[in-house]
Amino acid sequence: MALRAGHHSQVAMNGLKEKVLTLDTMNPCVRRVEYAVRGPIVLRALELEQELRQGVKKPFTEVIRANIGDAQAMGQKPITFLRQVLALCVHPDLLNSPDFPEDAKRKAERILQACGGHSLGAYSVSSGIQLIREDVARYIERRDRGIPSDPNNIYLSTGASDAIVTVLKLLVAGEGPTRTGVLIPIPQYPLYSAALAELNAVQVDYYLDEERAWALDVAELRRALCQARGYCCPRALCIINPGNPTGQVQARECIEAVIRFAFEERLFLMADEVYQDNVYAEGSQFHSFKKVLAEMGPPYATQQELASFHSVSKGYMGECGFRGGYVEVVNMDPAVQQQMQKLMSVRLCPPVPGQVLLSMVVSPPAPSDPSFAQFQAERQVVLAELAAKAKLTEQVFNEAPGIRCNPVQGAMYSFPRVQLPPRAVQRAQELGLAPDMFFCMRLLEETGICVVPGSGFGQREGTYHFRMTILPPMEKLRPLLEKLSQFHAKFTREYS
Amino acid sequence: MALRAGHHSQVAMNGLKEKVLTLDTMNPCVRRVEYAVRGPIVLRALELEQELRQGVKKPFTEVIRANIGDAQAMGQKPITFLRQVLALCVHPDLLNSPDFPEDAKRKAERILQACGGHSLGAYSVSSGIQLIREDVARYIERRDRGIPSDPNNIYLSTGASDAIVTVLKLLVAGEGPTRTGVLIPIPQYPLYSAALAELNAVQVDYYLDEERAWALDVAELRRALCQARGYCCPRALCIINPGNPTGQVQARECIEAVIRFAFEERLFLMADEVYQDNVYAEGSQFHSFKKVLAEMGPPYATQQELASFHSVSKGYMGECGFRGGYVEVVNMDPAVQQQMQKLMSVRLCPPVPGQVLLSMVVSPPAPSDPSFAQFQAERQVVLAELAAKAKLTEQVFNEAPGIRCNPVQGAMYSFPRVQLPPRAVQRAQELGLAPDMFFCMRLLEETGICVVPGSGFGQREGTYHFRMTILPPMEKLRPLLEKLSQFHAKFTREYS
Repeated sequence: MALRAGHHSQVAMNGLKEKVLTLDTMNPCVRRVEYAVRGPIVLRALELEQELRQGVKKPFTEVIRANIGDAQAMGQKPITFLRQVLALCVHPDLLNSPDFPEDAKRKAERILQACGGHSLGAYSVSSGIQLIREDVARYIERRDRGIPSDPNNIYLSTGASDAIVTVLKLLVAGEGPTRTGVLIPIPQYPLYSAALAELNAVQVDYYLDEERAWALDVAELRRALCQARGYCCPRALCIINPGNPTGQVQARECIEAVIRFAFEERLFLMADEVYQDNVYAEGSQFHSFKKVLAEMGPPYATQQELASFHSVSKGYMGECGFRGGYVEVVNMDPAVQQQMQKLMSVRLCPPVPGQVLLSMVVSPPAPSDPSFAQFQAERQVVLAELAAKAKLTEQVFNEAPGIRCNPVQGAMYSFPRVQLPPRAVQRAQELGLAPDMFFCMRLLEETGICVVPGSGFGQREGTYHFRMTILPPMEKLRPLLEKLSQFHAKFTREYS
Repeated sequence: MALRAGHHSQVAMNGLKEKVLTLDTMNPCVRRVEYAVRGPIVLRALELEQELRQGVKKPFTEVIRANIGDAQAMGQKPITFLRQVLALCVHPDLLNSPDFPEDAKRKAERILQACGGHSLGAYSVSSGIQLIREDVARYIERRDRGIPSDPNNIYLSTGASDAIVTVLKLLVAGEGPTRTGVLIPIPQYPLYSAALAELNAVQVDYYLDEERAWALDVAELRRALCQARGYCCPRALCIINPGNPTGQVQARECIEAVIRFAFEERLFLMADEVYQDNVYAEGSQFHSFKKVLAEMGPPYATQQELASFHSVSKGYMGECGFRGGYVEVVNMDPAVQQQMQKLMSVRLCPPVPGQVLLSMVVSPPAPSDPSFAQFQAERQVVLAELAAKAKLTEQVFNEAPGIRCNPVQGAMYSFPRVQLPPRAVQRAQELGLAPDMFFCMRLLEETGICVVPGSGFGQREGTYHFRMTILPPMEKLRPLLEKLSQFHAKFTREYS
C-alpha cells in the first residue's frame, strides 16, 4: 500500500468517513474571502511573539504590530470621561461614589434610564437605544452646520464593519451579467473585498491617483463603471474618506463631482467616514457626503441615496474593542429601510457598552461641565500627537531612497511605495509570494516590524507598497521608521 | 393623466428618478427573512408604549414584553461579581478603591494583562482573548466530567447568534438539487429560519412531538431527511437543547440516538446549548452533545463533526446586552477551521466586554474566594425563582380550558397550545393574518401583554400556540398568566 494514497482510497483503507465539511464541500464564497490586515503576516507575528516569550533568540526583542489601527494596543490611554461614564453604567453602585464627577453621573443616569430594566444587560431595540440615536442625530447636525438629521435614519451597529456589510447585503442581487457590482477604491480597506467575495457580488475596482496624493478622479470612476457594465450590474459606489490605507482627505469639489456622477449613473453611495476626526494636514478639512449632498440642493439632496458610516474605534477615542458604530441613511426607500431594520433584528442588538461609548463621543462634556477641561485636553493631546506622527512618517520615509510616501492628510496610516529590485521580485515569484509580501515577511523576520503588504489592499500592477499605522508612541515611531528604511536599503542591496 | 399611474410613468411625470435600491431590486434572500421575536407584534407593542406615555387611554397601564428572553429588562438584577470585575476592567483606577473585593480585583488584573495595551479598548485576536478561551476550555472539562477541551477549538463570538450564523455560512453551497439543506426543529428559534433564508440554504423541518412533551424522535428525523433528499442536499442537523421555544430537556438516550443518526447520515451537528444552566424539572438533567459524543467512543467520538454554542445572555446571568458567547467545534476539518478563523477576522473581534463577562461565567469565584458566598446566593435565587415560575406557568395554563401547556423542563419559555374557535380562524383569514397572530394582536391591544404567535416558530398545520417568557417577576407573573387565560376564555366566547 502506498503511504501517500489519494484521499478516497485512504477512506477505504482506514475506515474513516470523509468529513461532511471540507475545503471541497464548504461555501466557495467564503473560501474566496481574503483579509490581509489579519492575514498570514499577522499569524506569523503572533508566532514570533510566542517564540520570544519562550526565550528563542531573535534579532529583535519585541514584535511591533503596526499592521492595524489599534490605538490602545499601541499604548494610547483611554479618554477618562468615556470610561468613567461606562463604569458607572456597568456598576451603578458607583453612582454613590465621590470619586466620579457630577456630569459623568448625570450622563450615566440618563443612559440607564433609557435601557430596559435600567441595565446595560438588557437587549436594546435592534436599531440601538433611541436616546443615543437622537444624540447621534444632534451630533451630525452640529458637524454639518445645521443640515437636519433624523434619528429614525440612524442605526447603531457592532462597529462600522457590521453596518457596512448590512448595507452591502441589501444591495446584492442578480446572477451572471445582472449580478450586483460595487465600485471600490484601489487601494481599499479589505473589508470591502472580503464582504463582496462572501456575498458573491462583483468587485469593481477604481484606482486612486498616487501621483496626485491618492486623489479620486471622476474620469477613472467612469472608466471603471463602463468596463464593469459589460459583465455585471454596478449599483453602488464606495468611498473611504479620509482614506484607508491611503490617508488622503477629499476636497469639497471632488465630493460634489462624485455625487453628480453617482446621481447620473444611478449608484447608491456608501461613504466610509470613520476617520472624520482624524484630519491633520494644513488646508485639509473633512466634509461629510451628507452635508455636501444637502448643500447641492435638488435633485441631489432630495433623491441621491447615501449611507454614511462612523465608529468609536478610530478618532481620538480609539475604543476598538467595544465594537460601537452607526450608519445614517439618506433618501433610502422607506420599504427598504424596514427590510434593513428587520435584518438587524435577527442579530437582536449591537453591544450596549459600544452604544454607551458612542453616546459619549457624540455628546461630549460641554464647556460648563466639570469634566470639560480634562476631556478637551486629553482629546487634543491625542489628535496633536497623531498630526505630528503623520508628518514625521511622511518626512522620514521620503528621506529614504526607493521609498516614496504621500502626505498623510488624515486617517491613521501611511501607504508608502517601495521600489523592489527585479531579483527580489523574481525570488518572491519562485517562492509563490507577492513581491511586497516577500518584503514584509523578511522585514518581520529580521526586525520584528509587522506591516501589511500593499497587495492586500490592491495597487497598480508592478507597484509595491505596505500599510503601516502611525499609532506607535513618538519615542518608538522614529526608530521604527528609521529601522524600516534601513532594512529597505539593505534588502535592496541584497538583491541588486 | 391617471392619478394612480404605474411607477414608471410617475417617474416621467414628476422628474423623480426611481431609487436604486427598492423592494424590487434589493436582495431577494433578505426579503424572505422573517424574525417573529421582534416582528410586527413587537413594533405594535412599542407604539402602544409610546401612546401610553402620551396619555392615550388604554384598557391597561403598562405593556408587558413577554416576547423575548430578556431577563434584566424584566427586572432581574445583574450578578454583582460580574459587574464588579467588568467595572474594574473598564476603569482600572478603581483597582485602588477599597469598595471592591480582592478576588474581583485579581480577576480584573488577570484579564487586563491579557488585553492589548492592557485595555478593553484594544481589539482582541479574532477568535477571542486566548486566556478566556482557555478558561472556557476548563469550564467545558468540568461540565463534561473530564472530557478534554482544546482552547484552539473555541471561538468567542458576538452572542451565540453570531457563531451560529458563522457555522451555517461555512456549510452553505450548491445550487438547485445540490443546495445545502439544514434540518431544524419545528417549533424552532427563528434565528435558524432567518439565517437560512438569508444564506439561500434550504430549511428542512423536523417536528418535535408535542404529545410527548416536545420529544425529538429519530423516526421523524429520518422522515424529514428522506423527503428533503428529493430536492436538496441535507448536510447539517440543528438541535436546540434545552428547547427554545419548547422548553424540553433531552434525555441522554435521545442524544445518543441523534448522534448515531447524524453519523450514519453524514450530517454536521449543531447543538444550540445556550440554556444549559436553565434546567428546572425534577429528573431532567442537561447532557452536552460533546460529552455524550465522547462517551460513545469511536467512531462517533473521533469522527462526528459537532459545533456547540453557548452565551452570556441566558443562564442565571442574563447579560443579553453585552453580546457575549462562544462556539466549540469538535472533529472539524483543520483546513475548514482555518477558513472559519479567517471569516471571523474580517469582523475584527467580538466585543471585549462580552468576552470579559464570559470569562466570569466560566470561571466564577471559588469557595475560598471572598465573593463566593454572595455570588452563589445570587445565582441560586435566580435559578430557584425560574424553577418556581416554570412550574407556576405550566400549572396556571393547564387549569384554563382550551389551553394546554407542556412542562417547562428548561430554558425560559412556555409554548402553550391554544384552541381557537373556527369563527376566529375565519376572521383572521379575512384579515390576512395567521390565526394565532390575530389572537396575539387582540391580546396585546386589550391587555398590554406581548407574546409571540406560534406561527413565528413553526407548528403543525391547524394547531395554534404562542411563546411567552417565564421571566417576569413572580408578583407579576401570576396575574399575567391569569389575565392571559381569562382573555383566551373571553376571546373564545366572542367567536363561538
